[in-house]
Amino acid sequence: MRITNKKCLGLIFIGVGGLLALFHAWSPGSSSRVDIRSRQRSRIKTLLEWKIQDITRGYREIAYHIKEEVSSRLAQNTCICLADEETFQLPFSNLLFPRVWAHKLDAAFLDSHPDPEGVKRHRTQEYNSFKRRSYSPADMLIVAEANSPLQYPIQGVEVRPLKTIIIPGLGLKEETKSNHMVYLTAAIGTFDVAAMVDNVSVKGEGEKHIILSSPHLSALNRQLQFVTYTNTVFNPKTADTVDFATEGHHAFFTIKVGHGTVPKLYNSGYQTEYNISALVTIATKTFLRYDKLKNLIDSIRQYYPTITIVIADDNEHPQPVTGPHIEHYIMPFRKGWFAGRNLAVSQVITKYVLWVDDDFIFTANTKLEKMVDILEKTTLDLVAGAVREVTGYTATYRHIISVEEGGEEGDCLHIRNGYHHIIEGFPNCVVADAVINFFMARTEKVQQVGFNPRLARSAHLEFYQVKVTGLCWGAVEWRPLTVGQQRAAWW
Amino acid sequence: MRITNKKCLGLIFIGVGGLLALFHAWSPGSSSRVDIRSRQRSRIKTLLEWKIQDITRGYREIAYHIKEEVSSRLAQNTCICLADEETFQLPFSNLLFPRVWAHKLDAAFLDSHPDPEGVKRHRTQEYNSFKRRSYSPADMLIVAEANSPLQYPIQGVEVRPLKTIIIPGLGLKEETKSNHMVYLTAAIGTFDVAAMVDNVSVKGEGEKHIILSSPHLSALNRQLQFVTYTNTVFNPKTADTVDFATEGHHAFFTIKVGHGTVPKLYNSGYQTEYNISALVTIATKTFLRYDKLKNLIDSIRQYYPTITIVIADDNEHPQPVTGPHIEHYIMPFRKGWFAGRNLAVSQVITKYVLWVDDDFIFTANTKLEKMVDILEKTTLDLVAGAVREVTGYTATYRHIISVEEGGEEGDCLHIRNGYHHIIEGFPNCVVADAVINFFMARTEKVQQVGFNPRLARSAHLEFYQVKVTGLCWGAVEWRPLTVGQQRAAWW
Repeated sequence: MRITNKKCLGLIFIGVGGLLALFHAWSPGSSSRVDIRSRQRSRIKTLLEWKIQDITRGYREIAYHIKEEVSSRLAQNTCICLADEETFQLPFSNLLFPRVWAHKLDAAFLDSHPDPEGVKRHRTQEYNSFKRRSYSPADMLIVAEANSPLQYPIQGVEVRPLKTIIIPGLGLKEETKSNHMVYLTAAIGTFDVAAMVDNVSVKGEGEKHIILSSPHLSALNRQLQFVTYTNTVFNPKTADTVDFATEGHHAFFTIKVGHGTVPKLYNSGYQTEYNISALVTIATKTFLRYDKLKNLIDSIRQYYPTITIVIADDNEHPQPVTGPHIEHYIMPFRKGWFAGRNLAVSQVITKYVLWVDDDFIFTANTKLEKMVDILEKTTLDLVAGAVREVTGYTATYRHIISVEEGGEEGDCLHIRNGYHHIIEGFPNCVVADAVINFFMARTEKVQQVGFNPRLARSAHLEFYQVKVTGLCWGAVEWRPLTVGQQRAAWW
Repeated sequence: MRITNKKCLGLIFIGVGGLLALFHAWSPGSSSRVDIRSRQRSRIKTLLEWKIQDITRGYREIAYHIKEEVSSRLAQNTCICLADEETFQLPFSNLLFPRVWAHKLDAAFLDSHPDPEGVKRHRTQEYNSFKRRSYSPADMLIVAEANSPLQYPIQGVEVRPLKTIIIPGLGLKEETKSNHMVYLTAAIGTFDVAAMVDNVSVKGEGEKHIILSSPHLSALNRQLQFVTYTNTVFNPKTADTVDFATEGHHAFFTIKVGHGTVPKLYNSGYQTEYNISALVTIATKTFLRYDKLKNLIDSIRQYYPTITIVIADDNEHPQPVTGPHIEHYIMPFRKGWFAGRNLAVSQVITKYVLWVDDDFIFTANTKLEKMVDILEKTTLDLVAGAVREVTGYTATYRHIISVEEGGEEGDCLHIRNGYHHIIEGFPNCVVADAVINFFMARTEKVQQVGFNPRLARSAHLEFYQVKVTGLCWGAVEWRPLTVGQQRAAWW
């Protein structure tokens, strides 16, 4: 019996040991906790804010005289949208003497709402949540102290989440004394050294606070070339503010924590000429006019027989739209133009997407190669053409938009006819903020910004907001890439 | 006749004058040119690179001893994906002793391509274009000099395109001498002063290079509190590197130029309890199993009778899917799962989107309120639940992903079972990089990242790439929010 008992015990131990080993192998993962409820780390932030107040408080006793033409350009945080007064009514007065219009968007919304105070309160809450989520220590104001013996990187230090880097550029430059000492402190990472230098004492390796000291300044500086930072709290897009100090001096700098941008690259075929079908997809939205859509498709096929056309369709009784390289998407009835644009663009797999309206016609002047050329050779994200209406009038709709910071109620958007600059190398092109609705753009950029499916029809200001929110640049062809028939008014 | 001639001349002058005035009014816009072909500004960049080399060249003569456990964590830029060797074959060996697999994605693609060298060359070209487009002076490494009399902002200075700001934090701290002088130089902006201080000379107001000097140091410092920067070359997302100098010292800092983030806020109703139908839209993709889809919808309606369900459908012969709060989208046949997900998500107008597969079933344990609670109270962008299969096995599919920098061929992606941290305040939740395909996320984030419509079916690595590219965080509920039947394998 004894032998059996021992065997049993033995087996039990082996079994338990095995299970424990399995359990360990199966459940990897730190049991450390992370607090991600929306609270900001405040110690270093408070310290920095105090430093800045200290800096700006100086010299108050010295008088100054305001320079009006410059100070008036500074943001007042109290912008008001004011319309021009209507001075006189004449035929064509709007053309000859364009007036400034003003739309108070928030008033328009709140005036018709049953509970305006409640909506404003809720909006403030949502906005504060947004600010907490998007706050980054990398945006905080930091001022470098003058006459500091510390040398340190102020920009350009990045680490991938939970990875380790050497911090470049650390140094201490002071007069010789019996002992030279520096400290480094971080919030979401630890320090260590990738190599050891003789005669330097290092305390706190692998911790959030490290102290390096040496009687020899050059040895300490050599050691500082090997200091590493390891990010230890997982967050794929944040920053750590490092406090680098010596006796009597503090310096703060930021280490950005993030994955790095994964580029979205497209294979466009690699011949001497642009392969338009491989590079561009045409996208459009159709409603109530299959005849015009058919004309559009036929005209495209005359010049680009194999280019893919993506069609978003929210008719009540959809008809089939078929043909090679045609993708037809059926939506719920009347979902709207913005939802349709978002849908069409979500299906594009080529490098560029060309937006057209379903009542456009391609002509011999519709040269997509020209638009591709601009996008291939510049840093622009979007290039628009011109649309010639039945009347013969050619619209390019170039506008510039400027945003003036307002107070709590929001900012003021100013939209004016015109453009910013002519583009070097492309004398027919200019840079603008708003362009006509016939444009080619980088697909990944359009997809990142998107169109707001909540809006049903285009209206001036929502349309502009969509265009300006994030879509980086537009350029407009000066001479018309004529497209042809246009419906009489598109808003 | 003379009088008539004079009258005519007079009228002609008035006419021409009027036309000129009209022309001026009609064609606003600077005639200045901007060169946006993909070339980087190199003067300051070269200067900075030289400074950094100078800094890192020091102390070469001092020896060091490598600390292996730290230096091995540094990026080698030569990662290799290696699989474990298969030591023995046993039933369940994969479960008991999980092996490391390796997939060389690029080799898999290139081996079957007719022109691998051409593809690699083209990919390098596209990648270089991408780097030129995404380069920002705000990412460049800058090191602050020690013992510099200059005080300046190193982070946090931002200006909206073509607008003006006061530069905070400028100062000069040196010993008294007969004349104190500082210089500021910029590339895409100009300097000026918002106020004038007596006894200070300012030269170059409104230009890219400004000189301020005074025999009185405190007067100069007071003047430096009023220096303004105006961005003059339009680019909605860039940065200007400013050279701030005095005799013998240069300091460089960045002013970011950009519009500022326009927040996308959602009105979710403002009651004491979460209004799930106002906050959440359910999105799914269906193919070949309308019966399962119907079961899914019926089960959802038991618990959430008014929640909107968006369905992307790429069946060959689509059947109607109708009912209140159901949006049915029809796609070309077999467009695929990724295209379908991109489409469905592009139509969501609520704050959160819940992804489900068409063969899921909601049960009494499917508490969307719990998921909303986490997203409302933390900075997480995505929270996943668990899926209980017919067998009773509940999958959460928690994985962590780490990216190791490689060389020219690309980086190495490591995927392991497990999670990073437990979440404070939500003891059943952990932070991971990859989660099960039953998740709720912030709609704007999912739309920004998107799903690649080029991929047809889910496969391990493409799926992970989609999940890790940009979708900021995931958290996984520890205890199953059981969802029910699951198809046998989803990849």
